[in-house]
Amino acid sequence: MNSTRLTSGELTNRQEKFKKILKSKKLDGAVIFRPQRIQYLTNFVHLSTERPIALVIPVDDEPAMLVPKLEEEHLQLQASWLEDICVYDEYPGLRHPMYYLAELIKKIGLGEKILGVDNDGFLDQNSYQGPLLSSILTSELQGNIGAEIDRLRMVKTPVEIDLLRQSGYWASETHKILQKEIRAGKSEREISRIAEEKAYIKLDEAQGREGHFGAVGLHASFRSGSRTSMGHAAMGSRLVQMGDNIVTYCQGIVSGYITELERTMFMGEPDAKRKELFSIVREAQQTALDMLKPGIECSSVDIKIRDFFERIGKTDLTTHHQGHGLGLEFHEAPFLDLGDHTILEEGMVISVEPGLYVRGLGGFRHSDTVAITNDGYEILTPYPSSIEDLIIDPE
Amino acid sequence: MNSTRLTSGELTNRQEKFKKILKSKKLDGAVIFRPQRIQYLTNFVHLSTERPIALVIPVDDEPAMLVPKLEEEHLQLQASWLEDICVYDEYPGLRHPMYYLAELIKKIGLGEKILGVDNDGFLDQNSYQGPLLSSILTSELQGNIGAEIDRLRMVKTPVEIDLLRQSGYWASETHKILQKEIRAGKSEREISRIAEEKAYIKLDEAQGREGHFGAVGLHASFRSGSRTSMGHAAMGSRLVQMGDNIVTYCQGIVSGYITELERTMFMGEPDAKRKELFSIVREAQQTALDMLKPGIECSSVDIKIRDFFERIGKTDLTTHHQGHGLGLEFHEAPFLDLGDHTILEEGMVISVEPGLYVRGLGGFRHSDTVAITNDGYEILTPYPSSIEDLIIDPE
Repeated sequence: MNSTRLTSGELTNRQEKFKKILKSKKLDGAVIFRPQRIQYLTNFVHLSTERPIALVIPVDDEPAMLVPKLEEEHLQLQASWLEDICVYDEYPGLRHPMYYLAELIKKIGLGEKILGVDNDGFLDQNSYQGPLLSSILTSELQGNIGAEIDRLRMVKTPVEIDLLRQSGYWASETHKILQKEIRAGKSEREISRIAEEKAYIKLDEAQGREGHFGAVGLHASFRSGSRTSMGHAAMGSRLVQMGDNIVTYCQGIVSGYITELERTMFMGEPDAKRKELFSIVREAQQTALDMLKPGIECSSVDIKIRDFFERIGKTDLTTHHQGHGLGLEFHEAPFLDLGDHTILEEGMVISVEPGLYVRGLGGFRHSDTVAITNDGYEILTPYPSSIEDLIIDPE
Repeated sequence: MNSTRLTSGELTNRQEKFKKILKSKKLDGAVIFRPQRIQYLTNFVHLSTERPIALVIPVDDEPAMLVPKLEEEHLQLQASWLEDICVYDEYPGLRHPMYYLAELIKKIGLGEKILGVDNDGFLDQNSYQGPLLSSILTSELQGNIGAEIDRLRMVKTPVEIDLLRQSGYWASETHKILQKEIRAGKSEREISRIAEEKAYIKLDEAQGREGHFGAVGLHASFRSGSRTSMGHAAMGSRLVQMGDNIVTYCQGIVSGYITELERTMFMGEPDAKRKELFSIVREAQQTALDMLKPGIECSSVDIKIRDFFERIGKTDLTTHHQGHGLGLEFHEAPFLDLGDHTILEEGMVISVEPGLYVRGLGGFRHSDTVAITNDGYEILTPYPSSIEDLIIDPE
C-alpha cells in the first residue's frame, strides 16, 4: 500500500506529453490556472481560493509557478523539484498578482511568444477580480488549452490505475463498514460518519499515520426513503426507517485519485415493484459492463441501455446517462452519453451506473468504477450487487 | 433556531436589487452560471458538475432556469416559486445544453437584447466542453456581471446576519467540543471527526432531524506541530504530541452561510518564545478589531497591522493579510488587504486573523468572524482567546 507522491518520472512523462501537444499546435508554452490540472502536471495540491496560483510550462524549458507567500513553504514541500517559483505577497495586494505572473512569463522568455491558456486570467471564484492576462501581456494567447490536459488525463497510466485500484479498494472497505452500520432509527448522517470514522481507523492501521497528508480520503454517505429519487440530493439527518430505499455513495481517494461505489439497498424485504426495478437496473448495469472494451464508442453504451429501458417501457423513469470518467475529479471525461463520441481505450476509468427513479418511491442505481483493460474491463470497486446481499434486516 | 429556507420576500429583494443594477447598466437581463450566485438569487443549492445549470434574469420579467433532467425534481422542491424551467436531457447529449439555453433566452424575448453574463458559456470544470454562448446567440453579451452580484453579497441583510450568527454559534459549539477532544497520542483526523460527530448530535437535538437537508454543516479540524506554519496545509493523520502548536479551524454552515473560528493552542505549557508570539498575534487581532466600524477602508486595517509587525521586527514571519469576507463562500470580498479600497459598511462580515509563522516551529493565529454594526462590530464566533484558556494539559 503506497499512497505517497508520484515519482518524478511519472510527472516528467506527463509534462513531456503536454509539451508535445503544445509543439504540435505551434505554441511556445502554456499558462494553467485550474487546480486539478496543476496537480496533474506538478503534484502540487492546494486549497484554491481568491489568491491566484498559476503554472507556466515553456515547451523548451522547465516549468515555473506563481504562488502567494501563504503557499510558498507548502509548494516547496510538495514539488521540491520546481526551481522557478515566483512568490507574490498577497491578493489583491499593492501590486496585483497578475502583474507578477506577466513578469514571470517575460522573465522566462515567453513575453513575445504564443501561449496556450486554460483561462484568460485567474478563476472566477471567491470574489476574485483582476485584469485579463491578455490585457497586460504582449504574448499571443490561445484559449481552451485545458481541454488538451483533460484529454491526457482521460487515459490513465499504469501508475494511475494502481492508485485508482487502491482507491477502489478503500471505497469497497468503506462501503462494507457503512452497510454494517445502517439501521432503522438512526440518522443518515450519523450512520455515515460512524462508518467513515471506522474506515479511517482501518486506513490508518494499513498505511501508518504519517503516510497520507493531503489528497487521501474516504467518504461514506447515503440517502434514504423517497428522496433517493433525486440523483444528486444531499445527505441529511433524516432517520432511516424500515421500508426505505437506500442509495449509497462511497468514495476512496488515494493521492488525489477518486473512485465511486454506489449500491441500492432496502430496509427489510422489498415489495414486488421494488424488486422488479432493482432487477432491471442490475441487468442494465451488467449489459453496459459487458460492452466495455477498447474500440467501443462511449455513445453506443448509452444507446444500448436507453433502448433496453425503452423496450420495457421504463424510459420515463430515467434521468441521466450511463456513467462518467473519474480520476482527479469525481466527474470527468469521457461520458457514457449519446453525445460523447470518444472511443474507449485501455486505461480509461469510468463509472457504470444506469438508474431508474420513481418520485415518491425512490431511486434504483448501482454504480461501479471500472478501468478499461486491453480486452475488456476491470472492476475497481469490487462489492456484492445481488439483492440478497443488500437487504438490511430489522434488528 | 431556524435554518430553513429564506423567505420569498428576501429573495425578491435580492432579485430586485440586481435588476436595478442591470437597468442602470442599460442591460435587458443577465445569465448566471456560478452556483453560489444562483443560490443567492434563487435558494437553489446544487452539486455543480459538467452538467450546465444557468439562471436567466430578465429585468422586466420573472427569472427562468436551465437544468438537467437529473436536477428537475430537486429544483422544484427547492425553488417551487420558479415557473419557467427548461429541462434538458443530458450533457453532452444529442443536442448540447447550451442550445437549450439559447432557445430559452430567445423564448423569453431576450434573443436580440443586451445581456450581462458571469461567463461566456458554462464553467470550465469536470471536463466540460461546449460552445461559447456568444457564438450561438444573437444577443449582445457583456462580461463580468458576476462581480455585481458579488458586490451585493458583500453587504448582508438582517436575515443573512441572523443566519451567520447561528452559523457562528455552531462554529463555537463545535470548537468547544473539539478542544475537549484534543489529546496527545490521537491523530488530528480522529480527534476532529469525533468532535464533529458530537457537535452534529448536538445540532440534531437542537434543530430536529428533518430540519436541515443540504446547506447546513459543521466542520472541525486542526493541524498540529511544525506543519501549522503552513497557513493552508491540510489536516492529516499525524499523532498529536505534547509540546505541539495547534491551529484549529472550525466552521458553522447554516442555510449555506459560513463562519470560521480559529485558535492557536498549545499541548502543555508553551515556552517563552511561543508565549511571546501568541501574545503578539493576540494584540494584533485586538488592534484590528478595534478599528472596525462603518467608514473605515479595508486597506487601513492591513496597513496598521503590518506597521505593528514591522515595528516589533516580525514582518519576516508574516505570510498573509488580516482577513477576508465570508458568506455563501468561505472566502469572499472584501479583504483586509493593502490593495482593497472597499469602505466597511454595516452588514459586512469578515474574518480578522493576523498571523505569524515560524518554519520548523509552527503557526500563531486566531481567527474570528465578525459583522460590522452601525458603530463597530459584533463577534459572531464568541470563544475564549487568552492563553490560559487554550493550553491542553497532559492527561
